Amino acid sequence: MMFTTALAEDAARVQTRLHAALAGSDLPLLDAMRYATRGGKGLRGFLVLESARMLGADAERALPAAAAVEALHAYSLIHDDLPAMDNDDLRRGQPTVHVKWDEATAILAGDALQTLAFELLTDPAIGDAETSIRLVAGLAHAAGANGMVLGQALDMAAEVATTQLTLEDISRLQAGKTGALITWSAEAGAIIAGADPTPLRRYATALGLAFQIADDILDVTGDAAKAGKRLQKDAAAGKATFVSLLGLEGARSRAKALVNDAEAALEPFGAAADTLRHCARFVIAREM
Amino acid sequence: MMFTTALAEDAARVQTRLHAALAGSDLPLLDAMRYATRGGKGLRGFLVLESARMLGADAERALPAAAAVEALHAYSLIHDDLPAMDNDDLRRGQPTVHVKWDEATAILAGDALQTLAFELLTDPAIGDAETSIRLVAGLAHAAGANGMVLGQALDMAAEVATTQLTLEDISRLQAGKTGALITWSAEAGAIIAGADPTPLRRYATALGLAFQIADDILDVTGDAAKAGKRLQKDAAAGKATFVSLLGLEGARSRAKALVNDAEAALEPFGAAADTLRHCARFVIAREM
Repeated sequence: MMFTTALAEDAARVQTRLHAALAGSDLPLLDAMRYATRGGKGLRGFLVLESARMLGADAERALPAAAAVEALHAYSLIHDDLPAMDNDDLRRGQPTVHVKWDEATAILAGDALQTLAFELLTDPAIGDAETSIRLVAGLAHAAGANGMVLGQALDMAAEVATTQLTLEDISRLQAGKTGALITWSAEAGAIIAGADPTPLRRYATALGLAFQIADDILDVTGDAAKAGKRLQKDAAAGKATFVSLLGLEGARSRAKALVNDAEAALEPFGAAADTLRHCARFVIAREM
Repeated sequence: MMFTTALAEDAARVQTRLHAALAGSDLPLLDAMRYATRGGKGLRGFLVLESARMLGADAERALPAAAAVEALHAYSLIHDDLPAMDNDDLRRGQPTVHVKWDEATAILAGDALQTLAFELLTDPAIGDAETSIRLVAGLAHAAGANGMVLGQALDMAAEVATTQLTLEDISRLQAGKTGALITWSAEAGAIIAGADPTPLRRYATALGLAFQIADDILDVTGDAAKAGKRLQKDAAAGKATFVSLLGLEGARSRAKALVNDAEAALEPFGAAADTLRHCARFVIAREM
């Protein structure tokens, strides 16, 4: 099976689980939450499911955690797109939530999607309470003021800073903004399977950075219709990116080196890790 | 000891625990999070601590949960005050977060305070993983699209509705907006103590509604300097409140009846529940 087919199948499964949690109300709040959890690649949810499967756990047990990280990711996109933040009107090829509804609905839908993420981690299907609480602690750490939101705050600070970011600054910013959640996703599968999460942490840390470098490359070379969002925004804003600091070819070779690092971390798992290997290569070859 | 002194002592303790979790960074994001968790009555945190104490649990075990609910409450106030929501410039006698910093910082500080709430519930000081995960599940349910955020969404919907809310509508709205978190707080103490949370749920459900009716009364009769926020906003916005629907005297007697209900729920606990009884009376006698 093509990797992109496997990814799409998992994304559909995760979306079904999420929409089951959001069923039963026609309030704009719930409509907006369902809307914001449609589409997207589903990379984070896939990483939860696939790392659990690779380590022998039933994917059904990992499904609530996969849905949780996609809910959390969707919340961060809604809030990131708000006028006071990145002021984006297009996401996943559709109008952003505050454009389709209004800002208040977007703020509240994001808030409630974050809450839903933690609620999903209390689903007893995951396993014992120790496993669930470890997932809650890890997701909170990855998502909050030491992780994703820290990355977003550093990003906002960079926009008004008088000096350009260095490669180290950007790496730190991205480790929070996108890296922490991607790393949590791969680790979560291992935690659910009762395995040591260390190799998957190494894999996903390299993958997360490669993903972000690929995003910066796509921002310059990509097709907005395929990407489903506005491009060339960073250059227009005069923001330092991996491409502006390393050049297009330098960024490409850095991303490739990171994919090699990610694959190296999978060595202990042999052929069982082939899907995660495909995933690493997909991340830098994608057009969206 | 006066009840208000007991309340202030617990609030200080909870704030110290929260600020320990927020130490070590001078980013505006962290400054804003510390700022937003200062002041306030600390009623929710107090309910966690006092119900745990009444049922024989060490308050140290309840402290992370008390800090969690105050972090969650602080997040909800920051987002509620945003221009796209209630557009308030004054809170707890100080400029609101988006006025003192900016909207982006207010959005992110609120987001990270919600995350912090769930992170605090993973503190092993609380007890075993079963207890913590029950608290996470309960807080998520109380805070999300079935609880607090639902109440906020109904409140926003009411502002643009062409028909006035009925008493039943307002009761439902408030049960979400303020009731769910107050109820979780009292129940949390019982869960930490390993006791049946049912009587405290009854107590806190009545208390939460009395609290909101008292808020509506204060909005009409209160002193903005003492309340630390703008008043007479509901009447100016033409919003239905318990006062507009029941009249001032009707609202007062409804609040008193609810305080009696709350006290009746405490009967099984005898004199050990005296502080919670004082709390119920305080809720309708307060000036802030």
